[in-house]
Amino acid sequence: MPGNTFGTMFRVTTWGESHGPALGAVVDGCPPGLTLTAEDINQELAWRRSRDTRVSTSRREPDQVEIMSGVFEGHTTGTPISLAIYNRDVDSRAYDPLKGLFRPGHADYTYWHKYGIRDPRGGGRASGRETVARVAAGAVAKKILDQQGIIVLAYTLALGGIRAQKLDFDEIFNNPLFCPDPEAVVLILQRLQEVKGAGDSVGGVVEIRARGCQAGLGEPVFAKLDAMLAGALMGIGAVKGVEIGSGFAAADMLGSENNDSLTPDGFLSNNAGGILGGISNGDEIVVRVAVKPISSIESEQQTITVDGKVTTLSVKGRHDVSAIPRIVPVCTAMVRLVLADMLLQQKAIR
Amino acid sequence: MPGNTFGTMFRVTTWGESHGPALGAVVDGCPPGLTLTAEDINQELAWRRSRDTRVSTSRREPDQVEIMSGVFEGHTTGTPISLAIYNRDVDSRAYDPLKGLFRPGHADYTYWHKYGIRDPRGGGRASGRETVARVAAGAVAKKILDQQGIIVLAYTLALGGIRAQKLDFDEIFNNPLFCPDPEAVVLILQRLQEVKGAGDSVGGVVEIRARGCQAGLGEPVFAKLDAMLAGALMGIGAVKGVEIGSGFAAADMLGSENNDSLTPDGFLSNNAGGILGGISNGDEIVVRVAVKPISSIESEQQTITVDGKVTTLSVKGRHDVSAIPRIVPVCTAMVRLVLADMLLQQKAIR
Amino acid sequence: MPGNTFGTMFRVTTWGESHGPALGAVVDGCPPGLTLTAEDINQELAWRRSRDTRVSTSRREPDQVEIMSGVFEGHTTGTPISLAIYNRDVDSRAYDPLKGLFRPGHADYTYWHKYGIRDPRGGGRASGRETVARVAAGAVAKKILDQQGIIVLAYTLALGGIRAQKLDFDEIFNNPLFCPDPEAVVLILQRLQEVKGAGDSVGGVVEIRARGCQAGLGEPVFAKLDAMLAGALMGIGAVKGVEIGSGFAAADMLGSENNDSLTPDGFLSNNAGGILGGISNGDEIVVRVAVKPISSIESEQQTITVDGKVTTLSVKGRHDVSAIPRIVPVCTAMVRLVLADMLLQQKAIR
Amino acid sequence: MPGNTFGTMFRVTTWGESHGPALGAVVDGCPPGLTLTAEDINQELAWRRSRDTRVSTSRREPDQVEIMSGVFEGHTTGTPISLAIYNRDVDSRAYDPLKGLFRPGHADYTYWHKYGIRDPRGGGRASGRETVARVAAGAVAKKILDQQGIIVLAYTLALGGIRAQKLDFDEIFNNPLFCPDPEAVVLILQRLQEVKGAGDSVGGVVEIRARGCQAGLGEPVFAKLDAMLAGALMGIGAVKGVEIGSGFAAADMLGSENNDSLTPDGFLSNNAGGILGGISNGDEIVVRVAVKPISSIESEQQTITVDGKVTTLSVKGRHDVSAIPRIVPVCTAMVRLVLADMLLQQKAIR
Repeated sequence: MPGNTFGTMFRVTTWGESHGPALGAVVDGCPPGLTLTAEDINQELAWRRSRDTRVSTSRREPDQVEIMSGVFEGHTTGTPISLAIYNRDVDSRAYDPLKGLFRPGHADYTYWHKYGIRDPRGGGRASGRETVARVAAGAVAKKILDQQGIIVLAYTLALGGIRAQKLDFDEIFNNPLFCPDPEAVVLILQRLQEVKGAGDSVGGVVEIRARGCQAGLGEPVFAKLDAMLAGALMGIGAVKGVEIGSGFAAADMLGSENNDSLTPDGFLSNNAGGILGGISNGDEIVVRVAVKPISSIESEQQTITVDGKVTTLSVKGRHDVSAIPRIVPVCTAMVRLVLADMLLQQKAIR
Repeated sequence: MPGNTFGTMFRVTTWGESHGPALGAVVDGCPPGLTLTAEDINQELAWRRSRDTRVSTSRREPDQVEIMSGVFEGHTTGTPISLAIYNRDVDSRAYDPLKGLFRPGHADYTYWHKYGIRDPRGGGRASGRETVARVAAGAVAKKILDQQGIIVLAYTLALGGIRAQKLDFDEIFNNPLFCPDPEAVVLILQRLQEVKGAGDSVGGVVEIRARGCQAGLGEPVFAKLDAMLAGALMGIGAVKGVEIGSGFAAADMLGSENNDSLTPDGFLSNNAGGILGGISNGDEIVVRVAVKPISSIESEQQTITVDGKVTTLSVKGRHDVSAIPRIVPVCTAMVRLVLADMLLQQKAIR
Repeated sequence: MPGNTFGTMFRVTTWGESHGPALGAVVDGCPPGLTLTAEDINQELAWRRSRDTRVSTSRREPDQVEIMSGVFEGHTTGTPISLAIYNRDVDSRAYDPLKGLFRPGHADYTYWHKYGIRDPRGGGRASGRETVARVAAGAVAKKILDQQGIIVLAYTLALGGIRAQKLDFDEIFNNPLFCPDPEAVVLILQRLQEVKGAGDSVGGVVEIRARGCQAGLGEPVFAKLDAMLAGALMGIGAVKGVEIGSGFAAADMLGSENNDSLTPDGFLSNNAGGILGGISNGDEIVVRVAVKPISSIESEQQTITVDGKVTTLSVKGRHDVSAIPRIVPVCTAMVRLVLADMLLQQKAIR
Repeated sequence: MPGNTFGTMFRVTTWGESHGPALGAVVDGCPPGLTLTAEDINQELAWRRSRDTRVSTSRREPDQVEIMSGVFEGHTTGTPISLAIYNRDVDSRAYDPLKGLFRPGHADYTYWHKYGIRDPRGGGRASGRETVARVAAGAVAKKILDQQGIIVLAYTLALGGIRAQKLDFDEIFNNPLFCPDPEAVVLILQRLQEVKGAGDSVGGVVEIRARGCQAGLGEPVFAKLDAMLAGALMGIGAVKGVEIGSGFAAADMLGSENNDSLTPDGFLSNNAGGILGGISNGDEIVVRVAVKPISSIESEQQTITVDGKVTTLSVKGRHDVSAIPRIVPVCTAMVRLVLADMLLQQKAIR
């Protein structure tokens, strides 16, 4: 099954290249009767844009979605919702020198081997820009979650080796890093400047929480909720690890420490991250992803040409020093897509 | 889509409960003409059994598969291969006291909320025994990988807080822990005895490598190879984290450190874990999973009954002190299922 | 996607060959809490057996299902329901002479070209016996339809060129042909004797009706209810045509004749066969299938060997003179599978 | 699974309403390296337009596709191909009077019951205009078939009760009806004028042939080639019946008549319609579909309003007297989609 469709009952198909005319998503299976406007989607797309030049460079004009189908008089009709985001501020010239070589850390080499052809302009389909369609689709999924009172929140837990020391969720949207710790923000911004100056890049950790989610979501044994979340998040470019609840720390724990005791008022702890046996347990769902440092760096790197000749590379042009914070709303979107799909699937059986 | 089917072109559907008459798998999409015998599968099933009582208790008789269809005169025919493993040494009486309460760390609570009914005998479908069907199906996938020269190897990297200090792959099958470091084995076995004596359990880390895999496997943007591996592995009970290549460590690295330079002879390092842009790059694929400590412990725990009343629980009866090493062949199987599916999908387009 | 799985939310995977140890089905997505016993399924399997030697020969012992999973204390649990029907009265020797040649009208030739290998015993997977698994799965689907008050009824409309002149549904189960016209039954049985004596076979038409089906089932534009029914029924061996409502007759009608007028009490006619725009309209669903004469005949036929040499063939051994009436319960089963799946899908969105 | 995606390895997702801004298709799984231009697609779209006002009225401007992704320098890249056809000549005012009532023969009533909301402008998603996206996607599938030398040809076999008496395939594109019998064309055009004058509409039969198709396509037992074709074609609006080869006529034949004898040079007849056991046999694939008379007629009809009140209806405005010939290229497209998908699937296993 070609890989550009996600989900079963709430089903998203995305398309588009970084430097093509547009990118988009077709959302199929959205229940009828939900209110949906372009503005609902544009708000989510705006989060994905950088808001601070210290953090990332960016196309100048904000992304604007066009709803091409599936909505009538402001309500979803149950038919597929086609969303398109046109590429405006495109300049492919910067990529010409990159056409004949494989950039380290990028998908150039693998697309070439997989397809025997690749669109080198801005990374083509492998560009981070692909995620704009995910975020647009996630905004539709949000409408379903809103009805159930489910809130998905993502934030920067660590960046450039600096970790948030407190989780003040009210602070997340008050800084350009989506970071819940204002003091960490100061240190991280300083670190980003240094790294940028050195022509290098950094990685970090994003944490995502879903609140208000009923017990019972997830389809054992292969489409468990944790399995779907892991697949959804690991499929975002730059993500190299996913963990749920206590995650890798659980590997060093005792059963008596890691088990969450049940009481009539709920669980006494949440090492499970809200998921037991692959099914939501009604507690907060907690997921973390490891984000690798962005691959495009100005520092000179060794690589080869398409013809297998040794060469060096120093990437100039527009590129961020980290995939974080742009990746934060993408994580939110993917978790929303999973939860919306699982909600509809659970409705089908009970 | 109900969750008991895995894969697209190489497609496995599993069924069965811990204390039902049998468990099994239907493997659909297996190419015709491969040699396949029950013995091929029984060998893999044997790895999944414990071989050392210090490590785990176990049903007494070895698992034996019956091939019910899809094979004629020792060769696959292209029609579905139905595999059944009968439960022999079943004693459900030990589970009677557990019927009315929710065991911490187990799926009891979530199955109850999802389905409104559950089979309490041995955990039912949520039992680790479910994985016997995965291992059987993985043995079929192995036949496809064998043809391509792809080898999947899984081993215990850490257990009970003790980490292997060297990777001597020749040692893996020489100890009951599938551990590549004989000295670590001694320490771990000692640790397991202690923990068992204390009525507790431990977690650990399993690492899986796939060698000989061609560049080009994986289907962007949602069925990338890393996304499929993450989903496949996170869907194994007890797994709480998955990472590829440098994984969570990448979060603290610089781009200049993490990028793998290309040379005419291949990559100079393998932080990518063999996957770039969600597609295999021809290098060794390296994945690690975090395994939580087993939830069934003899130490007394606080929990509630089905009716919401406070109670305590001390799990007696057959249970291991760790999901490792039994989970090791399950990890192998899931990686094989992913690779076999991806190989067939790649064949379809080129 | 390999072809042995049917349905999306109510999902059936079948397996098994005519002369293998067993055939079976895995039913995934069945809602929990439904009562289900082997007897429920065996009743449906009994309809599939011939009850009259004038009509068809048959394996001697009745088929008996074993429920291997998914049911606890007489109720479905929401986990996959594995069903197995063992082959008892198997004698493969009669097929030895057929091993090296391609029987006209059979799948021998195409399986050979598709897979490069085939199981010649009794037609292998291409045997009509494959449908026993469909009927077993259909008995599970019936449980879902029962809850909604949906009744599916199939019967012989024409056989051997003789057409039922009246539809007395009470008569269907009173004769070995599932025919609603007792007078036609007499004529047809006489015709079958003649044809059998001449070493030949006949075709016919089966009609299926579904009553009590709510308006709103079917998923435009590719999984419309009529599309799913057509695919489900055309996929039964021996079926060469499917029509809904006025069907092929509509090709010769005027719009003013074919349109069904609406009144506050429902539709004035049912040329639509209960489906408008691919969605059920609340009226009776009416489908007909054309069944070709059975391919195995005693009359000598011209054919070729696997090596491409000219030869002749006269099929001896157990074979029916018509796929009807055995195919009638199979049609019932397939329509049930479609409706159960569509019901669950509709529940997901509203 | 929501219904707007078709196919497994060659996978098409369509979207769009009759009077929305655009309609389109996302084609995923197209092999890389095929040449593809907008002109390739526009040619197919042109066939779907009426070319003769005696036959059908039509939007004035020709449909023009925009390729939004998946093609680089004139070649497919393996990434999803997004196609959009903008609605230009849209006038929704004619539909205002229809907003509050259910047109007989249309999907108004069923969309209302399924979704609880409908886009009444021009039939919304249920409009025949939806098929423009299928034809566009079919033009991409054609590229794959071209490589294999497979040709799909569809034509009008009967219209308004008049049947083509000869099959001169060279004539098909020489008349506005896609009819292989020029003498029948004269009679049919006369008949269409009469029926139009009477404010009525007619149905007919379309036949589709696929030549050059290798033996071995189709995935038993549920995704057989005939099952997929039947589902694909029955899912086109206005189609009420599908038959393969001898089809419904087979119901009245003897086995000795209907079986196609094999010789070293191929089959002596083609009652099978090129498909045996659900797999292509290398012979010409022959399928026929019954097309009902178009539902929109000027003659007064009885119906009800959304509130259940009795009313009458006489449909004015742009509407054809028959879905044929416009439906002919749609049938071609659907057969192409099935064959392209089956070709890729067969490549995966052998």
